[in-house]
Amino acid sequence: MQQLRQTQRTTLKRLPKRGSHEREVINQILDEGFICHVGFAIDGQPFVIPTGYARAGDKLLIHGSQASRMLRALKEGIDACVTVMLIDGLVLARSAFHHSMNYRSVVIFGRAELVEDRGEKLAALFALSEHMIPGRWKDVREPTEAELQQTTVLSLPIDEASAKIRTGPPLDDEEDYAMSVWAGVLPLRLVTEHPMADPRLPGNIAVPDYVIEYRRKP
Amino acid sequence: MQQLRQTQRTTLKRLPKRGSHEREVINQILDEGFICHVGFAIDGQPFVIPTGYARAGDKLLIHGSQASRMLRALKEGIDACVTVMLIDGLVLARSAFHHSMNYRSVVIFGRAELVEDRGEKLAALFALSEHMIPGRWKDVREPTEAELQQTTVLSLPIDEASAKIRTGPPLDDEEDYAMSVWAGVLPLRLVTEHPMADPRLPGNIAVPDYVIEYRRKP
Repeated sequence: MQQLRQTQRTTLKRLPKRGSHEREVINQILDEGFICHVGFAIDGQPFVIPTGYARAGDKLLIHGSQASRMLRALKEGIDACVTVMLIDGLVLARSAFHHSMNYRSVVIFGRAELVEDRGEKLAALFALSEHMIPGRWKDVREPTEAELQQTTVLSLPIDEASAKIRTGPPLDDEEDYAMSVWAGVLPLRLVTEHPMADPRLPGNIAVPDYVIEYRRKP
Repeated sequence: MQQLRQTQRTTLKRLPKRGSHEREVINQILDEGFICHVGFAIDGQPFVIPTGYARAGDKLLIHGSQASRMLRALKEGIDACVTVMLIDGLVLARSAFHHSMNYRSVVIFGRAELVEDRGEKLAALFALSEHMIPGRWKDVREPTEAELQQTTVLSLPIDEASAKIRTGPPLDDEEDYAMSVWAGVLPLRLVTEHPMADPRLPGNIAVPDYVIEYRRKP
């Protein structure tokens, strides 16, 4: 497996056994998720903004309005930190202290670049659409030139990155295992509910399979 | 409804109709969520760390190991940005451009304070436990003095904060409503799956009701 270079920023200070720098592990988490939290600082003031994303090879793509404060700041090439977090369950231990969560997360450090070329920009918007709702792009109206111009797309290298994963049952102090209290994991999962048609949709248009069968887990 | 003061940092530059500074709206989002993303900067380098939290009145509480880089940085009183994001659905429009997400998010700016007093610290750990799994605390072993000392608890005022909410169907360009393509919302929801008992749990201990009936939505 390809290992990303480990830097001071991506070295876990605590519980290093939970960490990974393997590209395959990182990619799998990024491909299951679809919301990232983008961090940046302006004059020392941190901002954390949630947004959709796509992975295209070893790049993370984000997009939004040309007017977005976040995108205008990031396209100047300032340091960014992008975090993706998947919650897998609540870990109920016998002691308050050892309660935990099962999760898989990725943190990426780096500087974003503006995607300017028209073809690359359209490819990025396609990737963002396919990452969010695979199969959707072929059904919809593609962006006009004006829409393309109103949209900023940024690309962040997935290069200085690490994953952190917790799985499995609680880890209690040995003497607490004798306690008569339930312990284990309550798994959590993001699921879809019944699709809600737009009130303006004609009655004869069926829900597409990619909506009915939508799921994030591979 | 109580309105929080609006500052430059909490003023939405785009789509201000989606924003709110009402404490009740903010609290409702914070009470449904249980993971926040904490942003801070060290020498201009931003970090975004996901972690559990609780709301206790008009404070946001976070906690973790004394050794945590994040908590050690934040307890010095540096600027923080804490974001909570709840995903409610994918919004499928007729054009690629108008695809969106339904969500409810809160962003809080401020500086955290260390909770040092033993009684306040224990109350905060109780609040964190109850926020994550209501009803759990009474069943488990409370923290020892050593565990209390290994745990750092920080309190952030929910004072300079705003909510941002998108709900409802897609908003398409008028001419696109004639397209013969499905449009609407695919609701998403975080649900629990069947509890998994710790392999070391004796067979005669039942799953508590607060695990069986666990849900985040009120």
